[in-house]
Amino acid sequence: MITNRHVVLKRAPAAMPRAADFDVLACPMPAGPPPDGLLVRVIALSMDPYLGGRLRGRHMGEPAPAPGEKLPGFAVAEILESDNAKFAAGEFIVTETGWTRYAAIPAAGARKVAPGAVPISAHLGVLGMPGLTAWAGVTQLAKAGPGDIFVVDAAAGAVGGTAGQIARNLGARAIGIAGGAAKNALVTASYGFDDCIDYRADGWQQKLKAATAPGPTIHFENVGESVLQAVFPMLQTYGRVVLCGLAEHYHSDGQPPVLPVGPIVGKRAAIYGLVVYDFYDRLPEWVALATPLLEAKKLTFHEDASDGLDSAPAQFERMLRGQHLGKAIVRVAAEKA
Amino acid sequence: MITNRHVVLKRAPAAMPRAADFDVLACPMPAGPPPDGLLVRVIALSMDPYLGGRLRGRHMGEPAPAPGEKLPGFAVAEILESDNAKFAAGEFIVTETGWTRYAAIPAAGARKVAPGAVPISAHLGVLGMPGLTAWAGVTQLAKAGPGDIFVVDAAAGAVGGTAGQIARNLGARAIGIAGGAAKNALVTASYGFDDCIDYRADGWQQKLKAATAPGPTIHFENVGESVLQAVFPMLQTYGRVVLCGLAEHYHSDGQPPVLPVGPIVGKRAAIYGLVVYDFYDRLPEWVALATPLLEAKKLTFHEDASDGLDSAPAQFERMLRGQHLGKAIVRVAAEKA
Repeated sequence: MITNRHVVLKRAPAAMPRAADFDVLACPMPAGPPPDGLLVRVIALSMDPYLGGRLRGRHMGEPAPAPGEKLPGFAVAEILESDNAKFAAGEFIVTETGWTRYAAIPAAGARKVAPGAVPISAHLGVLGMPGLTAWAGVTQLAKAGPGDIFVVDAAAGAVGGTAGQIARNLGARAIGIAGGAAKNALVTASYGFDDCIDYRADGWQQKLKAATAPGPTIHFENVGESVLQAVFPMLQTYGRVVLCGLAEHYHSDGQPPVLPVGPIVGKRAAIYGLVVYDFYDRLPEWVALATPLLEAKKLTFHEDASDGLDSAPAQFERMLRGQHLGKAIVRVAAEKA
Repeated sequence: MITNRHVVLKRAPAAMPRAADFDVLACPMPAGPPPDGLLVRVIALSMDPYLGGRLRGRHMGEPAPAPGEKLPGFAVAEILESDNAKFAAGEFIVTETGWTRYAAIPAAGARKVAPGAVPISAHLGVLGMPGLTAWAGVTQLAKAGPGDIFVVDAAAGAVGGTAGQIARNLGARAIGIAGGAAKNALVTASYGFDDCIDYRADGWQQKLKAATAPGPTIHFENVGESVLQAVFPMLQTYGRVVLCGLAEHYHSDGQPPVLPVGPIVGKRAAIYGLVVYDFYDRLPEWVALATPLLEAKKLTFHEDASDGLDSAPAQFERMLRGQHLGKAIVRVAAEKA
């Protein structure tokens, strides 16, 4: 007999959410799809930093879920029953299912994805929003090309790792910043960056300076002020900065991050704010571009998967603490039932 | 008999330079041009905010002049004698003559200008570096066009006034920010901006918000953090900001100006640092574009001229205090000798 479970907040988190803030509870199995909607089986759940902010009402004005409510969140899922003519049972989709095993959901917003050479869960990472984020920042804002010296932090992650590989494929040198030996090894050995600097090591700023000499032409920021203020002075004249994520500030109650104005003028820098939602309609373009690169191993990715819905709270905390390697997901069920 | 005079620093200014920091002294009349150089008669001297910083060693790494040394500075001048095959007596040039009546100077860096429908001193303002600054920021960085809502501060000045007029000629709405009734009247009645807000009036931010509704798409910053932090929250999503001048900080010893990073991301803003030197080789293009606009009265300018070299220290202090109206110059001699 099929049983359903879902994850809820025990209490509204006052700081960075921790595993103890969540409950995983039995819940009713949906009887079928809602009118015009879908009944789906969740295969993999995406663990996303933005959600940590959203649970505290700090993301793009979206409301925080109330305690006891199923957590919001994106997943790749298989359609079990469809009441919508555009979708059929057996098809795979990426959509907001929430943190659950089975969900009865609207069809609106669901995006079909096709099984291929890579696990279907890649549509949550390199072929999904993180990959699109990287592509948009590198190609549409920074416009990386031959001769560029490209720096990205959180370089082992799905956004940073993909961004550096895209930049390299376009002819740039890619230098990552990541924390710890395992992440650094992933960035250079697996993603193929030219270099990666461990920001936990003493003197990392000097090492970054040496590795990027005569200075980065592009900096892709995923972390926040601590990295930005170290890298900005190294930036070459006419450098470009993509402000993408400010992960270190999502759960900080300190001063909001700032950038000094004078050096922007002195360097004739261009600074771009990136919100991936703006590029959502170009996701098919990115998937079409990335798929042959993945098949040719010119683009690689790494998944950090925990097993079973019950592992989601701990996996989420690991992700928020930066202890994951690559794209953090929860494997809720097998791709083939 | 021709006598020469020049202006020197009495002492290195510890804060914003004031008239009392300068001496105007008799000095030798140059015997003739230096080898390969020029002997010139200064017609008009440019009063530029950057020079206030330079006198304190705060401009682009250029050295401050020592007390007793002739002050650096740009002027329009007539060539009296030339030892250089590219220049002839009777031609007009813009070059760094320093603050003097007669100068023996290298030919390198001198730019010929032609008398025309406007006074030759316009080549220090609308047809010179301030005009080029405005053109570069509006057309090359912000790329203003139809539908844009363009805000610029120090709008009565040569950069701000020209920037708003260029934006309007390209189809944008132009809203200025300036201090006091005389400047506001100049901006709307003479420059033809759609509106101008007096930042000295109570509630100017609310007035600006109303005048720019639903929000500026472009902000051209000449002043610094006090304006930037008022305008930035009004900026529309995808707004562009040109950081051009930070005049209010040149003589401040407070914290350097900063911009909050989070709102740049939230607004998907693009921020550009502008240094006009980068566009110097495009000055002929701007002059060719601006000249017919000036003749057709689609571009106007205003000069705030004081008379005689001895007025330079007081005129410089007025300019640094923002008490001038339009482009501040010192008329050292008549255009026709």
